[in-house]
Amino acid sequence: MDFALDARTVELQENLLDFMDEHVYPAEAVFAEQLAQLENRWAWEQAPVVGQLRDEARRRGLWNLFLPGAEGAGLSNLQYTALAEISGRSGNLAPAAMNCAAPDTGNMEVLHMFGTEQQKAQWLQPLLDGQIRSAFAMTEPDVASSDATNIETSIVRDGGDYVINGRKWWITGAMNPNAKVFIVMGKTDPGAERHRQQSMVLVPRDAPGLEVIRGMHVLGYDDHEHGGHAELSFTNVRVPAANLISGEGEGFAIAQARLGPGRIHHCMRAIGVAERAISMMCQRAEERMAFGKPLAEQGVIRDWIAESRVRIEQLRLLVQKTAWLMDTVGNRGAHTEIQAIKIATPSTVQWILDKAIQVHGAAGLSQDLELAAMYAVNRTLRFADGPDEVHKNALAKAELRRQNKPSQR
Amino acid sequence: MDFALDARTVELQENLLDFMDEHVYPAEAVFAEQLAQLENRWAWEQAPVVGQLRDEARRRGLWNLFLPGAEGAGLSNLQYTALAEISGRSGNLAPAAMNCAAPDTGNMEVLHMFGTEQQKAQWLQPLLDGQIRSAFAMTEPDVASSDATNIETSIVRDGGDYVINGRKWWITGAMNPNAKVFIVMGKTDPGAERHRQQSMVLVPRDAPGLEVIRGMHVLGYDDHEHGGHAELSFTNVRVPAANLISGEGEGFAIAQARLGPGRIHHCMRAIGVAERAISMMCQRAEERMAFGKPLAEQGVIRDWIAESRVRIEQLRLLVQKTAWLMDTVGNRGAHTEIQAIKIATPSTVQWILDKAIQVHGAAGLSQDLELAAMYAVNRTLRFADGPDEVHKNALAKAELRRQNKPSQR
Amino acid sequence: MDFALDARTVELQENLLDFMDEHVYPAEAVFAEQLAQLENRWAWEQAPVVGQLRDEARRRGLWNLFLPGAEGAGLSNLQYTALAEISGRSGNLAPAAMNCAAPDTGNMEVLHMFGTEQQKAQWLQPLLDGQIRSAFAMTEPDVASSDATNIETSIVRDGGDYVINGRKWWITGAMNPNAKVFIVMGKTDPGAERHRQQSMVLVPRDAPGLEVIRGMHVLGYDDHEHGGHAELSFTNVRVPAANLISGEGEGFAIAQARLGPGRIHHCMRAIGVAERAISMMCQRAEERMAFGKPLAEQGVIRDWIAESRVRIEQLRLLVQKTAWLMDTVGNRGAHTEIQAIKIATPSTVQWILDKAIQVHGAAGLSQDLELAAMYAVNRTLRFADGPDEVHKNALAKAELRRQNKPSQR
Amino acid sequence: MDFALDARTVELQENLLDFMDEHVYPAEAVFAEQLAQLENRWAWEQAPVVGQLRDEARRRGLWNLFLPGAEGAGLSNLQYTALAEISGRSGNLAPAAMNCAAPDTGNMEVLHMFGTEQQKAQWLQPLLDGQIRSAFAMTEPDVASSDATNIETSIVRDGGDYVINGRKWWITGAMNPNAKVFIVMGKTDPGAERHRQQSMVLVPRDAPGLEVIRGMHVLGYDDHEHGGHAELSFTNVRVPAANLISGEGEGFAIAQARLGPGRIHHCMRAIGVAERAISMMCQRAEERMAFGKPLAEQGVIRDWIAESRVRIEQLRLLVQKTAWLMDTVGNRGAHTEIQAIKIATPSTVQWILDKAIQVHGAAGLSQDLELAAMYAVNRTLRFADGPDEVHKNALAKAELRRQNKPSQR
Repeated sequence: MDFALDARTVELQENLLDFMDEHVYPAEAVFAEQLAQLENRWAWEQAPVVGQLRDEARRRGLWNLFLPGAEGAGLSNLQYTALAEISGRSGNLAPAAMNCAAPDTGNMEVLHMFGTEQQKAQWLQPLLDGQIRSAFAMTEPDVASSDATNIETSIVRDGGDYVINGRKWWITGAMNPNAKVFIVMGKTDPGAERHRQQSMVLVPRDAPGLEVIRGMHVLGYDDHEHGGHAELSFTNVRVPAANLISGEGEGFAIAQARLGPGRIHHCMRAIGVAERAISMMCQRAEERMAFGKPLAEQGVIRDWIAESRVRIEQLRLLVQKTAWLMDTVGNRGAHTEIQAIKIATPSTVQWILDKAIQVHGAAGLSQDLELAAMYAVNRTLRFADGPDEVHKNALAKAELRRQNKPSQR
Repeated sequence: MDFALDARTVELQENLLDFMDEHVYPAEAVFAEQLAQLENRWAWEQAPVVGQLRDEARRRGLWNLFLPGAEGAGLSNLQYTALAEISGRSGNLAPAAMNCAAPDTGNMEVLHMFGTEQQKAQWLQPLLDGQIRSAFAMTEPDVASSDATNIETSIVRDGGDYVINGRKWWITGAMNPNAKVFIVMGKTDPGAERHRQQSMVLVPRDAPGLEVIRGMHVLGYDDHEHGGHAELSFTNVRVPAANLISGEGEGFAIAQARLGPGRIHHCMRAIGVAERAISMMCQRAEERMAFGKPLAEQGVIRDWIAESRVRIEQLRLLVQKTAWLMDTVGNRGAHTEIQAIKIATPSTVQWILDKAIQVHGAAGLSQDLELAAMYAVNRTLRFADGPDEVHKNALAKAELRRQNKPSQR
Repeated sequence: MDFALDARTVELQENLLDFMDEHVYPAEAVFAEQLAQLENRWAWEQAPVVGQLRDEARRRGLWNLFLPGAEGAGLSNLQYTALAEISGRSGNLAPAAMNCAAPDTGNMEVLHMFGTEQQKAQWLQPLLDGQIRSAFAMTEPDVASSDATNIETSIVRDGGDYVINGRKWWITGAMNPNAKVFIVMGKTDPGAERHRQQSMVLVPRDAPGLEVIRGMHVLGYDDHEHGGHAELSFTNVRVPAANLISGEGEGFAIAQARLGPGRIHHCMRAIGVAERAISMMCQRAEERMAFGKPLAEQGVIRDWIAESRVRIEQLRLLVQKTAWLMDTVGNRGAHTEIQAIKIATPSTVQWILDKAIQVHGAAGLSQDLELAAMYAVNRTLRFADGPDEVHKNALAKAELRRQNKPSQR
Repeated sequence: MDFALDARTVELQENLLDFMDEHVYPAEAVFAEQLAQLENRWAWEQAPVVGQLRDEARRRGLWNLFLPGAEGAGLSNLQYTALAEISGRSGNLAPAAMNCAAPDTGNMEVLHMFGTEQQKAQWLQPLLDGQIRSAFAMTEPDVASSDATNIETSIVRDGGDYVINGRKWWITGAMNPNAKVFIVMGKTDPGAERHRQQSMVLVPRDAPGLEVIRGMHVLGYDDHEHGGHAELSFTNVRVPAANLISGEGEGFAIAQARLGPGRIHHCMRAIGVAERAISMMCQRAEERMAFGKPLAEQGVIRDWIAESRVRIEQLRLLVQKTAWLMDTVGNRGAHTEIQAIKIATPSTVQWILDKAIQVHGAAGLSQDLELAAMYAVNRTLRFADGPDEVHKNALAKAELRRQNKPSQR
């Protein structure tokens, strides 16, 4: 065992930390102002500072770091986590600047792993170049989508086309007019075996019959600064059969393959969020006077700070170990750990954010600080690809199975 | 001891429950639509349904119930709590319809108790008639306002006037253009004994030098449906000396007198919020299927429902006992209990709302349900007139004193 | 609603508080010493101080207060709770001194309600006089006894006798040689309808075939100071048919009838335990210096004290309301509330005891203070007549039913 | 970073796991029986099975693994933790069998690092050989011993001797008559700088004036199976000056040096305890039927199992990282992490044990299972070398300092 990061990762971290200090943090206020002046509130990429940050990230070699293998930066999951965390400290800007923002990363991975040459040329390359963006349309309003067999959207072969009908919501990023393509999950064969009913197709934003109905809110936020969460309706939407990803019946398997890295990224960025919150909490505690002494001298505040540190240190190690397992034994071998970080991260970070808000008084809930928005984003993670309770249930079943095997040690 | 409500309260409850079922709940969606079409988003009273509800409430004798004594409905605090709770189930509409919404109730009480005849004629009567609204300007951005001695706004006597300078924020209701008068807390004598430095004056909205800067947000919400939370600046604002309430140096005492009933009202409405959340949670659990059975048959969901019921029952009793103490031994005698409900209520209700949201999936965080907005409002209560931690500290000091008296039993 | 205790209860409280101060608390150390010198460690009643306290309690009219109606003190459940709580502050001595200790109270109630004249003469009278003690033999080692239909002990009619076979454990009080009679739950008709299979019979301690195997420990304690918790085995134990209580098939109904008052008593005594713990915590906090100041000035300690006070106040009110419901609408009408206090009490008191121990340092876990033993006793309440989880599940089912009725308000 | 254990550790783990399966677990019941028959209940080493296990451990090369460097097994802290955890699963027997039990390990480390040749020959060698045992006498009854400057025991130079006066308690292992030597902390110079007042001396058990007063209980346990926790009194106890360890004024520094490894060991063994509890919980959940299905199918039970797994995985990684830091940057460099594991471990393990007990019903609290005793031992860790609150306070201070440095990244 060795808990030290390798030299390349440390170097990239230094590079990224400089980028954060010199470019990203100073850009936060600028971005907010520019956003407020956009004609289309969802077209966040049109804020000039975004392009400037992207140029700088590219110049520094901080571009597409998420993508493993030769086409990407060649980083392992473990190496990438150390960078994803730092980018999470400024979650609206840094990942986007580095072309490492959800849901595009997951979508690019899907195309990278399963796309045809044509699909790669048409969609993957512009995504890797940061020219367009994408969305992943899986969740549906009327069913518990954590159980993929509940999906009701239909994808029906009709001659050389697929015809799509259904309704989706919480499709992150899809309000951004530059999200030019959606990966849509639906059923091609409702009569097949449970996990062979689903397929995924690529649907261009401008396909007739595809309607972007509205942006969903999270607490009071519409999250326009990263493209919101759209409700979509598909009415006889027709795409060429060549837009099918991988093959009919492969939808569930693709979704599973997409999950592992996606969760690692989310979790590490969430830890970055928590670190920023702890930092803000400590600074506020030092500055704010109440009843004749700084908050930093109040025992209860100190208790929160200590608990925050102790919890986040444990959590980070588990996420890192999970990344390492994915690197060494594969996503399937890391299944339980991937569930574990999905369970542990949002609730731990929520606890820390709640305390950080409390230390800031009402300002902590307001638009003057990022804490409330961070809280809202993190709260959604307790639902993202299945509520906590579904993951706990599954993890417990696995544990029970393992513990009750005869030869268990 | 007797845990049964008296006949008059039960009758008013029935009346109010009918009002809720027949008028208030059906008006919620209407109000939302009408709000969206207002020219001034803060002028919520201009939504026609508000006036209709007020007329109906008046017709039913559900008007100004909060005000004790002959001028009001003559209800005790205990009697009123049973009604406040029910009104809290539709917190944006019912209290407003009944002219029982914060911060006006507290302000009317102040004028009722401490106002001159002229002040009553000019401000109290229109408030009681629902013609105007008001705000209470105490909290300041730069200091821990839970300690009233920190207040920095100055109120200086100059001839027949007082001249006010300072900055306030989180002034609830003040974005509403019909909030015609603000009760402003400031210091008339910074050299006086700690609790004799403060005074309160009535400041008309249109007083020169008073600027309404912006509305503060709470977790993404600007709360325009009840007048928002304004940031205000006072620059040489001049009011006649007759606008002083009670006397110079009385500010702290007035604030204290205002606190007790205010907290009871907030707490009971919050319990109403929790009851609505429990109700929504139970209905959703019954309807929503996951993994082949309704959520209502999942053990973890049942655990939440049971905990919610058990916690809210305990909490309600404590609030009711506090109201009874205020009725029987006065606000001062109920001091510890008033602190206790201020500590217990927001965190209990937050726990229940978090679970109710979780049962609803992402919809629970969205604009489609009221749960997220309820969560945001309730979260602010953990700061309202001092963060939880200040109240806990004070309550513990009192407990330590009591327990360490020689003759303690 | 009225939160004031009636005059008779207040008078009895004063009487009891005097008794506690003058007799019970001073007797605690004496009892410990006398216990250590007993030949039979389970024969706690032979400690002379017990008899002295009983005499004094009788003299003061503090005897058998638990028993309602004319045969007892005529107190309502609500009136009695106020006294049970105080007795709980010295849980090993005060209830025993007042002949109000479990499990005898429940057993006397059973005989009072369901016993024949002969049974009353033979067993109830000596119990009411404090001459003998009793036990209630329901829980079995091999089955989840919270579900009474699981009971495996058989009670078979054979001529004029019943013949009992089975095994019981956690039979509180039964190690005391003066526990002369056991109420034994078993099945007379395993083929009957679920809740008509069970019956109860009175079994004298010296019945052939009844073996007292051993005392069960609770977190290291054998609880000999109140008769321990026995494991019993019944091998062809034969009792006259006249020892049947009420009738065949009535066992479940009798158990239900016994439960309500039993839970109220347990809960109120547990609140007394918590009050003593809070008191000890406050005194220790005042006296103990660490890092240059008393613990009482540490914010975290104050937080615990405040939380303890706020939680216990809520809990007490719920128990009192439950008692009032039992008095006004009967045990069945109070069913949900009885479950609620069973759920809320042990966990709340456990939290407080844990903090009280923590404030005392390692001494809090030792034999020098009562806190650790109080913790152990309270911990068992989370299992007593069914684990918390069973009660939560049942309460949630009832809530779901109520909330999903069409006409629910 | 690399999360794989090295080959030597894996090999030792396999060896140890075999030892546990073949020898230790089967010996548990034997040990309990033999203990019950000892004439001196504290002389646990006289149970024959202890000697047999020691012989086997020695034969397998599982002896003195804790001791770093050439004199010991040459394992790093990180390597040793993987073994300590496994030994913790049978905490009364395995560490003792391997001569790796507290407090002897810490005492041997002290002698190893700071002892003179004579001290090593006289005390260290027999300890390493398992011939005698030792105790560490630091905690005092009247002062908050987490602050070493509070120590009141005096060590006064008198000619060629030191004379010791004072009172100690909670001296673990000291009731065992074979604990032949005590390392005693006291003050040689109360006037010196705060951390230079203390010294440590070696005091033989049979030194005149040293009285072993009694064994302290933990909850209801006296922990005789590992030598209990003694209260000691020193009255003019005289030892040769050569018994001083290191030098006058070095007491605090020695205590600090002893702490790091001690805490790692405690924490890893506690994780072993938690693993055994999880294992028991899973097996019981599978076997126990309630309401027609095994507990393993109850959602709430699964929630506990999942939470247990998720928490313990995080905790283990933090302890391992701390060990790695001690190996790479030394105990001082690992200061914050050592505090962190001291904070996190006992509370996490307590939570898991509480749930494991709950799953077992009342049996979980009884003498029939080890869970209750495990709970008691673990509860003391929340006080061992300072209560949680002291460590949290210190860790928060360090975090605040770090976060508020100008150049902090």
